[in-house]
Amino acid sequence: MSDYAGQKLLIFSAHATDFISKCAGTVARYTAGGGHVRVVDLTFGERGECAELWNRNPGITVEMVKDIRKAEAAQAAEILGAEIRFLDFDDTPLIMDRDRLLRMVDELHEFRPDIVLTHHLEDRLNYDHAATTGTYIRALKAAQQPGVRPGVKVLGAVKSFMFEPDQSEFSNFRPDTYIDITGVMDLRTQAMEAIASQSYMIELCTNRAWYRGYQARRVSDDKSIQYAEAYMRFEPYVGRSFA
Amino acid sequence: MSDYAGQKLLIFSAHATDFISKCAGTVARYTAGGGHVRVVDLTFGERGECAELWNRNPGITVEMVKDIRKAEAAQAAEILGAEIRFLDFDDTPLIMDRDRLLRMVDELHEFRPDIVLTHHLEDRLNYDHAATTGTYIRALKAAQQPGVRPGVKVLGAVKSFMFEPDQSEFSNFRPDTYIDITGVMDLRTQAMEAIASQSYMIELCTNRAWYRGYQARRVSDDKSIQYAEAYMRFEPYVGRSFA
Amino acid sequence: MSDYAGQKLLIFSAHATDFISKCAGTVARYTAGGGHVRVVDLTFGERGECAELWNRNPGITVEMVKDIRKAEAAQAAEILGAEIRFLDFDDTPLIMDRDRLLRMVDELHEFRPDIVLTHHLEDRLNYDHAATTGTYIRALKAAQQPGVRPGVKVLGAVKSFMFEPDQSEFSNFRPDTYIDITGVMDLRTQAMEAIASQSYMIELCTNRAWYRGYQARRVSDDKSIQYAEAYMRFEPYVGRSFA
Amino acid sequence: MSDYAGQKLLIFSAHATDFISKCAGTVARYTAGGGHVRVVDLTFGERGECAELWNRNPGITVEMVKDIRKAEAAQAAEILGAEIRFLDFDDTPLIMDRDRLLRMVDELHEFRPDIVLTHHLEDRLNYDHAATTGTYIRALKAAQQPGVRPGVKVLGAVKSFMFEPDQSEFSNFRPDTYIDITGVMDLRTQAMEAIASQSYMIELCTNRAWYRGYQARRVSDDKSIQYAEAYMRFEPYVGRSFA
Amino acid sequence: MSDYAGQKLLIFSAHATDFISKCAGTVARYTAGGGHVRVVDLTFGERGECAELWNRNPGITVEMVKDIRKAEAAQAAEILGAEIRFLDFDDTPLIMDRDRLLRMVDELHEFRPDIVLTHHLEDRLNYDHAATTGTYIRALKAAQQPGVRPGVKVLGAVKSFMFEPDQSEFSNFRPDTYIDITGVMDLRTQAMEAIASQSYMIELCTNRAWYRGYQARRVSDDKSIQYAEAYMRFEPYVGRSFA
Amino acid sequence: MSDYAGQKLLIFSAHATDFISKCAGTVARYTAGGGHVRVVDLTFGERGECAELWNRNPGITVEMVKDIRKAEAAQAAEILGAEIRFLDFDDTPLIMDRDRLLRMVDELHEFRPDIVLTHHLEDRLNYDHAATTGTYIRALKAAQQPGVRPGVKVLGAVKSFMFEPDQSEFSNFRPDTYIDITGVMDLRTQAMEAIASQSYMIELCTNRAWYRGYQARRVSDDKSIQYAEAYMRFEPYVGRSFA
Repeated sequence: MSDYAGQKLLIFSAHATDFISKCAGTVARYTAGGGHVRVVDLTFGERGECAELWNRNPGITVEMVKDIRKAEAAQAAEILGAEIRFLDFDDTPLIMDRDRLLRMVDELHEFRPDIVLTHHLEDRLNYDHAATTGTYIRALKAAQQPGVRPGVKVLGAVKSFMFEPDQSEFSNFRPDTYIDITGVMDLRTQAMEAIASQSYMIELCTNRAWYRGYQARRVSDDKSIQYAEAYMRFEPYVGRSFA
Repeated sequence: MSDYAGQKLLIFSAHATDFISKCAGTVARYTAGGGHVRVVDLTFGERGECAELWNRNPGITVEMVKDIRKAEAAQAAEILGAEIRFLDFDDTPLIMDRDRLLRMVDELHEFRPDIVLTHHLEDRLNYDHAATTGTYIRALKAAQQPGVRPGVKVLGAVKSFMFEPDQSEFSNFRPDTYIDITGVMDLRTQAMEAIASQSYMIELCTNRAWYRGYQARRVSDDKSIQYAEAYMRFEPYVGRSFA
Repeated sequence: MSDYAGQKLLIFSAHATDFISKCAGTVARYTAGGGHVRVVDLTFGERGECAELWNRNPGITVEMVKDIRKAEAAQAAEILGAEIRFLDFDDTPLIMDRDRLLRMVDELHEFRPDIVLTHHLEDRLNYDHAATTGTYIRALKAAQQPGVRPGVKVLGAVKSFMFEPDQSEFSNFRPDTYIDITGVMDLRTQAMEAIASQSYMIELCTNRAWYRGYQARRVSDDKSIQYAEAYMRFEPYVGRSFA
Repeated sequence: MSDYAGQKLLIFSAHATDFISKCAGTVARYTAGGGHVRVVDLTFGERGECAELWNRNPGITVEMVKDIRKAEAAQAAEILGAEIRFLDFDDTPLIMDRDRLLRMVDELHEFRPDIVLTHHLEDRLNYDHAATTGTYIRALKAAQQPGVRPGVKVLGAVKSFMFEPDQSEFSNFRPDTYIDITGVMDLRTQAMEAIASQSYMIELCTNRAWYRGYQARRVSDDKSIQYAEAYMRFEPYVGRSFA
Repeated sequence: MSDYAGQKLLIFSAHATDFISKCAGTVARYTAGGGHVRVVDLTFGERGECAELWNRNPGITVEMVKDIRKAEAAQAAEILGAEIRFLDFDDTPLIMDRDRLLRMVDELHEFRPDIVLTHHLEDRLNYDHAATTGTYIRALKAAQQPGVRPGVKVLGAVKSFMFEPDQSEFSNFRPDTYIDITGVMDLRTQAMEAIASQSYMIELCTNRAWYRGYQARRVSDDKSIQYAEAYMRFEPYVGRSFA
Repeated sequence: MSDYAGQKLLIFSAHATDFISKCAGTVARYTAGGGHVRVVDLTFGERGECAELWNRNPGITVEMVKDIRKAEAAQAAEILGAEIRFLDFDDTPLIMDRDRLLRMVDELHEFRPDIVLTHHLEDRLNYDHAATTGTYIRALKAAQQPGVRPGVKVLGAVKSFMFEPDQSEFSNFRPDTYIDITGVMDLRTQAMEAIASQSYMIELCTNRAWYRGYQARRVSDDKSIQYAEAYMRFEPYVGRSFA
């Protein structure tokens, strides 16, 4: 439990539910172990990730979609034991600019995370994801410089991990970090069930978690691992011994 | 100290002194902490790494060079608290074949390492290094299969780390793991001083260790780090929390 | 003929004549076979691709250049049997934004193409090209989501092919699809002759078509191929047998 | 059915059962449609792929393992409607040389395939696979030159497809061709069941086929696709229209 | 001296002092030899590169920081014998747009450089750098087209060289050009000493120059080389003999 | 002329005529200017590059093919003013080993070149080429070490340039050096005409030289350039000014 207690994890999620499909197991691991997790949703994914809602409800409006998504995401976060915030930046396309970058700086300054999880730098099939990460990297550096928000204490070292894009091979995603989520699959699935507007999520994400679990088991020889989530570090590991 | 005690580190070094120029600090860290380190030198680097010996001693023979190198490398290993073995495979070029691959399998079976350090998969300026790693990867897989040496207990999971080539940018080396060697620079330098036949090594390796230390300090915000050695993992990290 | 009849091809061309220099032969193939081809020119290339016009006509204005280019491009399209539209977004630099992205969505919704041809994702020597493709990819995804233009029928599967940049090796262009244009070189050359403002185009494009034809002939063993145009697929081929 | 009838598919499989785990569905597609498929097994995978056999049968010999594997592979081939041959080159490591390369030339000359399936050029976790492909590429070129086997009719154009390595992201495998195998999953599973010595194969391969099916469905909008196998072309597609 | 006399070097430096840390030695070489060097500073690095100033002077304002930086950079330029200009675009983040791109075009038209030095196309740890280079490439092409600034004489061929990013391996920087700066290290150090707000610069930059000097010495066999600066060409070398 | 006089160029050509198709123009440039050029042909290309000979002369033997090729290559070398040697290593496949590597060392020691031209490190369509270069790189390093041939004076710095493979984009060839061969196209064509057994060479090589000339003209603004040959440096350029 000592690995999690006091650890602060911040997640920048381009759309309402990316944090669930990509790292719900990891979130559950950390909150169960005493970590503190906050999700920042840049958009509700109201246009680009809710085909089911739009198709089944002719006449539904963007605001109605946002409300539904907000409620679903909040419920999922609660199931996972995480806080959640919504920036409502509009999706598909998500357009970032200087003000939004500085808003991310402010989120970093306020929460002061030890670890940040976000999208992969490259996502050939979803530029909203890449826009999020590209801006996060700039925001992280800005948050670590005293001249950007004079008077605010700068952020120290943060470990950034990028979760896997929908189709890893097309976006040069090569995972270097696997988190064993075998014991928390129930919570992960419950969180997914809270998202009625994306019912296809469970089968796909279980398939991926099984595959990542297979790889993690093979690499580690730890037969107890059945499911895992995969990440890429943004910066190298530093230590006095090998991890 | 608990990170090192009982840990077994095996190093496959293409030439007599690669283990010194590339990972002497890390070796000292592990042996000082109670780890068990064995070096396997594939060659004495008798042709390709001893220009000073050949130039200063007209008439010197290959056998004489090997003897000098063997003594120097053994002394350096002793300074670092490591065991050392010599396979005497001949260098420049080092030619690997099935028998030599199986010899590496036997070394793995005998020592049963937790961690292996060796060269980077690619070394554009020194194919002896790449030949060593290419064969090691095959040997590792072979050592983990029961049919290769029937009756010998197969090897379990091994963490493999590749140390940096002489000119990293030309060999696609992108370090992902830095080991802080600030406290063991004295031993590292002493080991290098034992290698009279490569006196240029100290200045170059200190330059690199300073640069890697600078990077490690920047990434980790740990101001105490002054020197480091850099590696690439061969397979991903697997754990229940981020390293 | 059955491969073309009823097929709808849409081309997003950054400058007025990119569709000619890059895929005129393919266009002729499709229109001759009963396909329906529409070109959407994002700009007239009025600043960046008309050195001859500017140099030979001191005092000429941007509007005059646009008019000349528009007439030339329209004539070339007619020769090739294709429709053409002009978005007049201004070139060198071509700056894309949310509105222009949504305009591309509307073009996709209106024409409902089976196949889209556009620039390569990367063009180190011409960022207008890369800007076009980067926006197209976002627009394509947006056009396939019901929330982006509520009430408009979403677009189905589209096969996207990227034509070759001016200097392929510097832009990581590695062709995977060659279209044999041997039988339609006359139309292709006529279309190029319609562009008096870029008279150098014919020699260069014939050189490339010969080279791509040479490669296509070597790969296929089809001795009848003399000229070809080269493309990269954006997404994989899916079928019940190998193509 | 016209896509398959008369088509000749040759498979170079490094180990006895690679052709099953990697392309059994595709084989079943082709044989069911009237194609002619021959498998050439370079080794029995007797050392590197039979941990279960070795672990459960203390005292078993290499020859006994080979016999079991041969029988299993032959049965699986029969289920799939394919011919099979065994070159018995010894595995883990599989060492290729000039004679073995020429043996592959002879196999190509004798069968005269339209299509060849084999491993990916790169397989970081299994060099036997990469050795097979590297030699195949040389053999293919040699088979197409009249001076290599004077008097033998040279081979014409062959379409080569590389099946996916065990862990695609670590071997730069980026699939560009998906074959829908939805209708032949039963045969595929039966073939896997014939390989008692690798009982883990079914779960892993079904996971992958589901994932590739998900991708193929998304790209093509063809809702009927549930399972697929993924490949990379070795040389570009050439045609008069887009595939 | 004939290599420098009459040569015009323009440097686009994202922050006030990048031109010092990256290419001060090369600048000194050229000015000493009769070349004409102008630096264009896009920003003062007032927010992202002056942690020491902000930390040591509570209450300092952005304008005060800019003034200090401007004076320091001007003094350093004078030491190096170079002209300097300040565009004051604001840093961290530096946001480029059409007007700023055209301002770079105007700088190119006015100075008419033979050689341009700027940042590497990619800088994973500092997007201000990448933004500068991405815009420069577009500006260079625009400056070479008569339609962009009608009536202004177009720019001819320019040799562009990209200096190394802070951590080359993480930004795909692979140097292809080394400039020997052995004889001008004194001026280089003096220029760095003029930048009191970044006192850490000297040790880091001397470490790099020593390492690049070591590489240059090894490649060229020129034992007189002790220090060098490294670059990547943006476009190929063209000549009648090898350089 | 001062760029060529006294310059010694050595060419390692995998097959008899690679030196003609790849660098005949450059050879002519150097010999015309007073340079000294020697070609070392590793094989006669007797099996893999003489389809015309084998097809038109049923019953011809390997020895007869070698004799014809040797005469043709010698004549071409004479036309170009170069010396030529034949190592007769057998082609398709060309298999390199330790002895052949050392033979290349001896060639380097004897000729003592300033510049070496050879194939690209990677050639996906012709592994004989890649085998030549891979061995050359090892041989170069060996030739520069005193322990490899004790008593022989070591080789100093050599500039190595790799000529372009048949299909550059498939072999990661990205040219960085263009040699203007406009004035020596006649000699180049005459040399090709001497190779009756590969009559297709002229059209292909002229197409490439025109294309490389177009690129060189665009980069340099030198309108006199019509034809060029393209290369990649193996190691960086080192100098006191930019080339």
